[in-house]
Amino acid sequence: MLVAELVDTIWATRKSEALNGVKFLLAEVKGGSRAGDLLVVVDMIGAGIGDRVIIATGSAARRMMGDDQMPVDAAVIGIIDENYDQVKKQNGKIERFS
Amino acid sequence: MLVAELVDTIWATRKSEALNGVKFLLAEVKGGSRAGDLLVVVDMIGAGIGDRVIIATGSAARRMMGDDQMPVDAAVIGIIDENYDQVKKQNGKIERFS
Amino acid sequence: MLVAELVDTIWATRKSEALNGVKFLLAEVKGGSRAGDLLVVVDMIGAGIGDRVIIATGSAARRMMGDDQMPVDAAVIGIIDENYDQVKKQNGKIERFS
Amino acid sequence: MLVAELVDTIWATRKSEALNGVKFLLAEVKGGSRAGDLLVVVDMIGAGIGDRVIIATGSAARRMMGDDQMPVDAAVIGIIDENYDQVKKQNGKIERFS
Amino acid sequence: MLVAELVDTIWATRKSEALNGVKFLLAEVKGGSRAGDLLVVVDMIGAGIGDRVIIATGSAARRMMGDDQMPVDAAVIGIIDENYDQVKKQNGKIERFS
Repeated sequence: MLVAELVDTIWATRKSEALNGVKFLLAEVKGGSRAGDLLVVVDMIGAGIGDRVIIATGSAARRMMGDDQMPVDAAVIGIIDENYDQVKKQNGKIERFS
Repeated sequence: MLVAELVDTIWATRKSEALNGVKFLLAEVKGGSRAGDLLVVVDMIGAGIGDRVIIATGSAARRMMGDDQMPVDAAVIGIIDENYDQVKKQNGKIERFS
Repeated sequence: MLVAELVDTIWATRKSEALNGVKFLLAEVKGGSRAGDLLVVVDMIGAGIGDRVIIATGSAARRMMGDDQMPVDAAVIGIIDENYDQVKKQNGKIERFS
Repeated sequence: MLVAELVDTIWATRKSEALNGVKFLLAEVKGGSRAGDLLVVVDMIGAGIGDRVIIATGSAARRMMGDDQMPVDAAVIGIIDENYDQVKKQNGKIERFS
Repeated sequence: MLVAELVDTIWATRKSEALNGVKFLLAEVKGGSRAGDLLVVVDMIGAGIGDRVIIATGSAARRMMGDDQMPVDAAVIGIIDENYDQVKKQNGKIERFS
C-alpha cells in the first residue's frame, strides 16, 4: 500500500453507471521515490481533503468496495492518525512524509 | 486510477477476435511524476480526443467492459467535467493537470 | 496497454511444460516516459519482428491465450496498422512512436 | 517479490472493519533501482522494525493473509536470515542491500 | 515478462508455512530502462545462479507454481538458451542484455 495525502476532489458526471454515487479523490503519494505521484482513488470510509491515508491498489481496491464488479483500481483503506507526525517528532524521529 | 488526456486513436486491423468493434485510444497521463506516460485504453462511454478522463488499469479494465474474458488492461471509467480547470482557477486553486 | 515494437525472438528451451510451442518475442516500448523499456511477450496472432503492436500486461495476457493457467504476464493483443505513421504525417500530425 | 527493511509502524484507527487487528508496517525497499521506495505492508509472521523482509505485492498479499476479501496489496512473506550480510562478507561477496 | 540474471540466493528461515521448501533467488533485470532492478523470484525448473531467465510477475507467478494459494508474485518461467548472445554476435546483431 502507499501513503498519500488527499489533495482534491475529481468530478466526472459522465461515467460507468456502476460508479454512480462513488466519491473520487485525488491523492498525492508522500515519501519515498514515488513521492509526488498522483492517483485517483475511491473512498468508502469518510476520508477528506488534507487527510493522510493508506491507499491499496489493484484488485485490492475492489475488496474495499465489497463489490468485485466495480471498475476501480485504487481505494482508501485507512486514515493515518492525525497525531502521527507529532508523536514522531516528540520521540526525536524523522518525519517521513512531510 | 490515473488522470489522462485522450490524444489519438489507434488502428489495429489484425487483433484478437474478442476485440472486434472495440475502440482503442491513446491516453497521455497528466500531472504527477508519471506525466507524459502513454497508455492505449479502451472506451465504452463515448469519450473522444481531447477529453480528460479517469483511467483504470489492470483487472479493473475488464470490469468496465462487463466481460472478464476481454484481453485488455486499461479502460476509461469516467470523463472529467470540462469546467474542472475553470472552477479551480476561479477559486484561486492550482491547475494540476495542465 | 502499451505500444511496442517487436525487436527480437527469445529462445528458452528449458521452460514450463505449459509453455511448449509458445512463441516468445522481445518488445521495446515506444513513446512516452516508458520508451525503451524491454518486455518479453507471447504472440498468438502472427506478429513478427518489426511490427508495432499493442501489448496487454498482467492477467489480461492470459485472457489473450484463452487459458487462465498459462504463466505469462504480457501478450500481443493487436498489430498496429502499418500505414499509421504515414497517415499521421500526411495529416501534419506528430509521429508519436518513431 | 521485493527485499525491504521494516522502518516504522503506521497507525490508522479509522479503517476498513476487515482490517481490525491487522498490523501495518512501513517498509523501505533495499537494493536495485527501486531502493528508497516506501510501501505500507501487513505482517502475519511476527516481523519487527529493523528486520529485512521479503515483500509480495498485488493479489499475492491476500494469499498470505489466507483471506481473499482483505483489501491489502502488500505483505511480508518471509524474514531474511539475520546473518545474510555477514555470510556474504566472509565469502568476499558484495552486500547488495546495505 | 522480464529478462533477468539470477545473481544470488535468498535465505528466509522464518516464512509462510506455504513456502516451506520453496527456493528464493535474487534476479537482476537486464536490458531496457528497468535494468538493475532487483526482484526476489521463485524457481520450479532448476534454474541456477548465473542463468539468464524469463520472469513472470503478478498472478502469473502462482500459475507457474500450480497452486493459486501461494503468496508469491514473481517466478522463473524459462531459462534463456546459453548460446543466445553468441548466436547474436555471429549474426552481427547487438547484445541487448550484456
